[in-house]
Amino acid sequence: MDCTQQTMPDMIRRQYDFYDEVKMKTIGYAAHSAHAPLVPYSFERRALRDNDVAMEILYCGVCHSDLHMVDNDWDWSVYPIVPGHEIIGRVIATGAKVTRYKPGDAVAVGCMVDSCMVCDQCKKGEEQLCREGMTLTYGSYDRISGEMTYGGYSKHLVVREEFVLRVPNGLDLSRAAPLLCAGITTYSPLRTWHVGPGSRVGIIGMGGLGHMAIKLANGLGADVTVISRSETKRNDALNLGADRLLVSTDHRAMENAQCAFDLIIDTIPVRHDLNPYMPLLDVDGTLVIVGQVGPMDELFTAPMILGRRRIAASPIGGIRETQELLDFCAKKNILPECEMIRMDEINQAFERLKRSDVHYRFVIDMASLPDPAKKA
Amino acid sequence: MDCTQQTMPDMIRRQYDFYDEVKMKTIGYAAHSAHAPLVPYSFERRALRDNDVAMEILYCGVCHSDLHMVDNDWDWSVYPIVPGHEIIGRVIATGAKVTRYKPGDAVAVGCMVDSCMVCDQCKKGEEQLCREGMTLTYGSYDRISGEMTYGGYSKHLVVREEFVLRVPNGLDLSRAAPLLCAGITTYSPLRTWHVGPGSRVGIIGMGGLGHMAIKLANGLGADVTVISRSETKRNDALNLGADRLLVSTDHRAMENAQCAFDLIIDTIPVRHDLNPYMPLLDVDGTLVIVGQVGPMDELFTAPMILGRRRIAASPIGGIRETQELLDFCAKKNILPECEMIRMDEINQAFERLKRSDVHYRFVIDMASLPDPAKKA
Repeated sequence: MDCTQQTMPDMIRRQYDFYDEVKMKTIGYAAHSAHAPLVPYSFERRALRDNDVAMEILYCGVCHSDLHMVDNDWDWSVYPIVPGHEIIGRVIATGAKVTRYKPGDAVAVGCMVDSCMVCDQCKKGEEQLCREGMTLTYGSYDRISGEMTYGGYSKHLVVREEFVLRVPNGLDLSRAAPLLCAGITTYSPLRTWHVGPGSRVGIIGMGGLGHMAIKLANGLGADVTVISRSETKRNDALNLGADRLLVSTDHRAMENAQCAFDLIIDTIPVRHDLNPYMPLLDVDGTLVIVGQVGPMDELFTAPMILGRRRIAASPIGGIRETQELLDFCAKKNILPECEMIRMDEINQAFERLKRSDVHYRFVIDMASLPDPAKKA
Repeated sequence: MDCTQQTMPDMIRRQYDFYDEVKMKTIGYAAHSAHAPLVPYSFERRALRDNDVAMEILYCGVCHSDLHMVDNDWDWSVYPIVPGHEIIGRVIATGAKVTRYKPGDAVAVGCMVDSCMVCDQCKKGEEQLCREGMTLTYGSYDRISGEMTYGGYSKHLVVREEFVLRVPNGLDLSRAAPLLCAGITTYSPLRTWHVGPGSRVGIIGMGGLGHMAIKLANGLGADVTVISRSETKRNDALNLGADRLLVSTDHRAMENAQCAFDLIIDTIPVRHDLNPYMPLLDVDGTLVIVGQVGPMDELFTAPMILGRRRIAASPIGGIRETQELLDFCAKKNILPECEMIRMDEINQAFERLKRSDVHYRFVIDMASLPDPAKKA
């Protein structure tokens, strides 16, 4: 099926060769085995289905989970992997039945590119919780062809219309990419737990996710406290929008902060001890894990019982909620702090990411990657 | 202050000597050090304050936490300890300003006998979550006199009116005692998490708390599944009101039960592994810990993240909710399964409790304890 001829305007089509073929030639950066460096990788995107949108990728954020997947930390990586699920692009073609997007539109794609669309969760707009499992932007199998999905560390992408977000006017394209994972992963729990003016929100960890949690909680009108092991992050925390810093190694400060939070967003991406944080929650308060995927230290139940306190974990949000986030950020002028890199700097960026040496998110400028499909 | 003369009817007063004195002579069973057997212990109850109710204790349930306190398992026991916080009694006297109770009334006292009564939690009727900490029925310090509180393994009790429950007509006094801790500890989370018809409730553990959770969840109209390590409890579970048994060592059954529960009440009173149970929760479902006070095994976050699943812990309920429970049980004819013992059988009962050898709650018949105050 190749329906692209019907809808792709000539002005766009003229720039590209690939629509003469069934599939679209593109290039990306891939890892071919665990711990291998990313290297240039030529591959094809599927020919447009009726409901597909083809885009040229302009920017792609570098998420810590990209590193986990490349290194097979979760033991389910299949190689080659083309990572990347914080994608900003521009539509270059649309399938025959696409109604929402047209070539030239600024669009975005996050962590998922498909789901069953008929289960209760999908119907509620919670495609990330699809009963059949969402199809991830990379490292998943396409639900129709069975082909491996490849992510945003590449020049082009084809995604079904329902999983494409609109980037609203006024949102800086070069800084919006991290909203698609770091943003929605922190926005979703803020919305699920009804954060708004008057809410007392604590944020643990101040990396890619944590810095977005600060900005978004602040944008929602909450009173925001960053909880950190040391004083060193105080200025950065305040500059990002926090109302204060709570130093978790200061026993008196921690004692004084008992019952001080309705919600704590825990963005620490490694195994750690939740117990020091539990007394900080007020009655019926919740600590939401969004960082660590894996084991946590043993849990002591007494502080939980005594305050009816709760621990939850939360994934990304659904498509509707992600669109809401993009619109919210455009309206509130909330943008991630980005450090722009070239595609060929990705391996150094991964090394720095391992040392948490980034403020606060690497974003790859895809203009740095040559376009194999573009006519000379 | 001794206001009892004003309100105690002669028919009651004539039976007792102790109102000639400031304090009330009584007798109980106490532990004098960790792991010591309980022995008869003569002591005094405070003279009635204006808002106090004095009662003769008729029955007292034996809670697993009594054993923990006697053995100083939580490292905050102060001796002597007179345990017991599942108390059914009959009013024998009331303070000058008591309005709700009169001598002869069937009453109950649970795990707490006082709180600040002015904080936000107390005003919401959640005295168990009082900002100053509730005063426990035993092992706490009285908020006025500073004296140690002694519990229900005794002949008499004096408690301020606001912490006395009314036993509704029709509730079998000899079987109601366990409602005051085992009952409310399982009823409260069922209510907090809005269990009703259509709710899918799983119950782990089938001891004192677990068997009440089955009866109460069933009474609230929920679909109830007992989750147990072996088949052996199937008949008992069904007889108590469960709709089915899920054997947690049967991998296929566990696989088939993924996402099958809105709420799981975990009544296991020792350290254990929560991870096998997490996938059983549906999206946004909660596992509520009500049994173990202490460490839990390490927690794996992936199943929590993928289903936005939650872990909570919950204490007893407030006074209003406890009264609601008693009224609910009277209306629905829900009663704990009790094994009646004499007061002097308590040490054997503790030994059996350590082996989980009880179906499902020991209740002490206080008629087995001589009354030192009663005229010969």
